[in-house]
Amino acid sequence: MNDFASIPEHGLGWLQADGEHADIVLSTRVRLARNLQGHAFGPRARVNDREAVLREFRQSSARCETLREGSLLEIPDLPERTRRILHERRLVTQDLLGPEEEGPHNGTAVHFSHRDPVSVMINEEDHLRVQSLVSGLRLREAWNLVDRLDEELGRELPYAYHNDFGFLTSCPTNVGSGLRASVFMHLNGLVLTQEIGKALKALSELGLTFRGLYGEGSEVVGSFFQISNQTTLGRTEEDLVDDLERVTRKLISDEQKARSFLLRSARAETEDKICRAYGELRYARLLSAKELIGLLAPLRMGISLKLLPGLSVYSLNKMMVFTQPAHLEQAAGRELSSEESDAHRASYVRRVLATEGVVDESDDTPEQP
Amino acid sequence: MNDFASIPEHGLGWLQADGEHADIVLSTRVRLARNLQGHAFGPRARVNDREAVLREFRQSSARCETLREGSLLEIPDLPERTRRILHERRLVTQDLLGPEEEGPHNGTAVHFSHRDPVSVMINEEDHLRVQSLVSGLRLREAWNLVDRLDEELGRELPYAYHNDFGFLTSCPTNVGSGLRASVFMHLNGLVLTQEIGKALKALSELGLTFRGLYGEGSEVVGSFFQISNQTTLGRTEEDLVDDLERVTRKLISDEQKARSFLLRSARAETEDKICRAYGELRYARLLSAKELIGLLAPLRMGISLKLLPGLSVYSLNKMMVFTQPAHLEQAAGRELSSEESDAHRASYVRRVLATEGVVDESDDTPEQP
Repeated sequence: MNDFASIPEHGLGWLQADGEHADIVLSTRVRLARNLQGHAFGPRARVNDREAVLREFRQSSARCETLREGSLLEIPDLPERTRRILHERRLVTQDLLGPEEEGPHNGTAVHFSHRDPVSVMINEEDHLRVQSLVSGLRLREAWNLVDRLDEELGRELPYAYHNDFGFLTSCPTNVGSGLRASVFMHLNGLVLTQEIGKALKALSELGLTFRGLYGEGSEVVGSFFQISNQTTLGRTEEDLVDDLERVTRKLISDEQKARSFLLRSARAETEDKICRAYGELRYARLLSAKELIGLLAPLRMGISLKLLPGLSVYSLNKMMVFTQPAHLEQAAGRELSSEESDAHRASYVRRVLATEGVVDESDDTPEQP
Repeated sequence: MNDFASIPEHGLGWLQADGEHADIVLSTRVRLARNLQGHAFGPRARVNDREAVLREFRQSSARCETLREGSLLEIPDLPERTRRILHERRLVTQDLLGPEEEGPHNGTAVHFSHRDPVSVMINEEDHLRVQSLVSGLRLREAWNLVDRLDEELGRELPYAYHNDFGFLTSCPTNVGSGLRASVFMHLNGLVLTQEIGKALKALSELGLTFRGLYGEGSEVVGSFFQISNQTTLGRTEEDLVDDLERVTRKLISDEQKARSFLLRSARAETEDKICRAYGELRYARLLSAKELIGLLAPLRMGISLKLLPGLSVYSLNKMMVFTQPAHLEQAAGRELSSEESDAHRASYVRRVLATEGVVDESDDTPEQP
């Protein structure tokens, strides 16, 4: 698809599972919220504000080293399915795409750097959202990329800034540094050993928060959690990033201990659960999105515990992204009903497992009767 | 094992799935209950009665054409595990083996013909139980085998017979012809379409009855039913056998209609259920006996519907028998705890499916995304 050809790695770089602890930390995201002086922002922004912001951004981006080589996609120009695919690849937010019944506002756009895994959403909740989304645990790297681009843009654009509060943003929780850093983690061991409650409680005491797989307010499915800082006011960006990094490393260590405990105390049951999930995925003919996520969870832990030697974390990441409705429709070349989606999803999963994830079902049997 | 080497086909002929409608009717059994004049029978029989009966049977069997070539196993002489294996192969009843805490009575035995699939239990509930157990729907054939052997034995032995009532038996429900004919059926389609209640209600109106997989009073597991005549008094043996045959053929036809209906009205869901059960069995590391039966049920229907081309009904029958506790212990060469049994059961199933039942998971996909 032309729109994706212009995005580095088709926007799928964060799936590569090449970052640190990629079996437990799927991805790292850092974003900064910025607004421009002289234009209303947030809910008060009108079409002329948005168009002016986009115009100013275009002019300045041509002078930014990071963005000079890049592609800007204007959301209203994109086919509806392309927009949904961008969202399913986590490259844009639903907020940027507008309410489903209305569609996108004029002036909304996203600009991808061709040099670094960094991009800017224009006229989302704030005028600018500078963000980096990378594979595995790479908070420092993502922060540095975002920080440098922010510096470049700040030299060109008049950011709305208050000497007491810091950067001004549409939502008060972002005022200050405007930074949100988050890690997308798989904490299946802590869920299975029922220690997750304690771990999540500790997060909130440290000014961090968590959400489910599909963002704010969403249900926790398959033991996937997005963990991020809650407030930005009164802390330096470096402090916020370092705090999250420290907590994430502690969670990784706790998760690894929980997994070892499961293998020690209930090896047969743990292996059974993992292998059955593999068997179901390998043969199912209908899979809902939610059920798939639930079955991928034990597989992810199985890879981490070296119980599924034929399978890679990358294949699992790919299955999570490419089995979403717009991706399935893109592959089929047409719209799909919900039941058709379930059939196409199962078919895609069978194909990936048959070609990228063959696990010998007679492996690892201590004693054959 | 020596004891089984002396039994034709090691007592496994009924697993061969070579009879008519073997996908729906696993096996047919016909048995006659007989007692000898001059010896107490049933609960009143004492050790000298039983020993005398066994002596008389031995003498007469040497003069019976069907039994002359054959092997007689005295139950008290057999190792405990051998007895349990005979029971798991459905060649002897728990009644013949005696209460678990006491063990077998003196004089209990089973004699297998080497010529035909027919045998005699000696000193079970009645002095003699002449029985034939064969694969698929073969009521007439089983009846003829049992009838001929009964004639031969009746020429040699003084059967207890009353001119008004017919053959006298330990339990009043057997008085008359002493015949019980039964078919072991898999009625998964009728269960899934919820028509099974009506079908079973009709049975009792025709003087027939049904039981679950493990005999009288047992729970129905995996949609397996044993259907048999309830009373024997006042009907000829031929009538009883013909009635059961007629009803069985009607049930087979109804079951086939139910399966076609499922394929027509819910093809994707039906295929999904069948293929997932295959996937779970192919990869599970722990399987309880009951869960295995439940997962074999959709596989059996899948073979019947030609959805699992690599798999045979014979392999499924074998899995049902060889995964029972005594069989697993025999293969392991030692006693097994319940969790060990579950692991050995899963391992055996994986091995059979990997060698005898390979199903290509990418088959039969209408449209690849």
